[in-house]
Amino acid sequence: MDSAELLDLLGNANRRRILRLLARKPCYVTEISEYLGVSPKAVIDHLRKLEEAGLVESRTDERRRKYFSISRNLRLEVNVSPYEFGTKSAYPASKGLDMTACRYLSLEVGHVDPGDDEDEQVDLGTLADTLQELEQLENELSLAQRWVQGRLSDVRERVADLLDDGDPRLAADVLAGLADGSATAPQLSRRTEAPTEVVEDVLTTLAEEDLVEREGDRWRLVD
Amino acid sequence: MDSAELLDLLGNANRRRILRLLARKPCYVTEISEYLGVSPKAVIDHLRKLEEAGLVESRTDERRRKYFSISRNLRLEVNVSPYEFGTKSAYPASKGLDMTACRYLSLEVGHVDPGDDEDEQVDLGTLADTLQELEQLENELSLAQRWVQGRLSDVRERVADLLDDGDPRLAADVLAGLADGSATAPQLSRRTEAPTEVVEDVLTTLAEEDLVEREGDRWRLVD
Repeated sequence: MDSAELLDLLGNANRRRILRLLARKPCYVTEISEYLGVSPKAVIDHLRKLEEAGLVESRTDERRRKYFSISRNLRLEVNVSPYEFGTKSAYPASKGLDMTACRYLSLEVGHVDPGDDEDEQVDLGTLADTLQELEQLENELSLAQRWVQGRLSDVRERVADLLDDGDPRLAADVLAGLADGSATAPQLSRRTEAPTEVVEDVLTTLAEEDLVEREGDRWRLVD
Repeated sequence: MDSAELLDLLGNANRRRILRLLARKPCYVTEISEYLGVSPKAVIDHLRKLEEAGLVESRTDERRRKYFSISRNLRLEVNVSPYEFGTKSAYPASKGLDMTACRYLSLEVGHVDPGDDEDEQVDLGTLADTLQELEQLENELSLAQRWVQGRLSDVRERVADLLDDGDPRLAADVLAGLADGSATAPQLSRRTEAPTEVVEDVLTTLAEEDLVEREGDRWRLVD
């Protein structure tokens, strides 16, 4: 599911309340309707939208009552700043995240995985500790991301100050677009949502400043 | 601005397109209207909502033309999982983030701050390098967040399996709520959005399992 679809769904207060409720326990329509003080018809409509998006699923119990629950792990990040409006949605990363691949970040959590073997009995105390560590780590990562966003905004602004001809914001975007590796002008055009020829002008300016260089049809930052 | 207000604003595709446009350059109404193929009246309406939320601001140039731009740094995070629906919005953290306060996380970025002194001339190359490092760090943090969310979901599920009486999901929430430190039943009730008496029942169950203990009217995890 892409960010736009997710934002459309989350843009409705009652759908958010339904998700908050389902995150605590599976519910059937009447429960939700009473809890929210919303007509069953409206609840069914919201659930249908959530189900179509694959965010919610339902199962019927022995008393033929249909229970709804959240079916999916999803994460959405939105950054808004004078130089950026970025949305990113993604599924949780698998256990096997290779932190050694991270160049600038390192995590140190003790028993993140309380017993890899599912059969192994792990007591609630251990799980509670792990829960505690993970929650704290989540807060620290959140803080770090906000810090990075602040710094990115500072640097983009300073790039803009130095590049006063043309479209300095776009130039900052293009530089950022090359940060992950070389790219073609059309690729940068898609990323920055600017026409290819405009992006090419900016690349030429940046090349004159010896910031970027061309290899065939690909551009990259000068080391 | 709280997450709900932000999600309501971002729930509209045209408002997202307007923000994406303003993130690249300040625009006046006619520009936006033509770029989006939306009537000026609708654009003005969206801009008013964004301005009221403090997300967008306007200034009038010498030709008495009113330019709109994004006025604010904001970050929104949404986690959806079978055991969680969490939204968090925050302003970027200041430069002086004290990473030593982070227990589980450490960042290593070279020249994140290219010259603390604003007057000091820093060349574009250095800024481009910094931009590159920050963008990569942002991706790594994002990956780490998704990894943590996956683990949290695993652990909550296993807590739920062990606590089959009462409301296991709520119990996991309560344990998580105590992860950041001691709390009163009403505080946990607000956090988990469950009635105080229900939370107190869960706390009693957890106390019988020697997972939590009471100090006066506050509860905390047993070390």
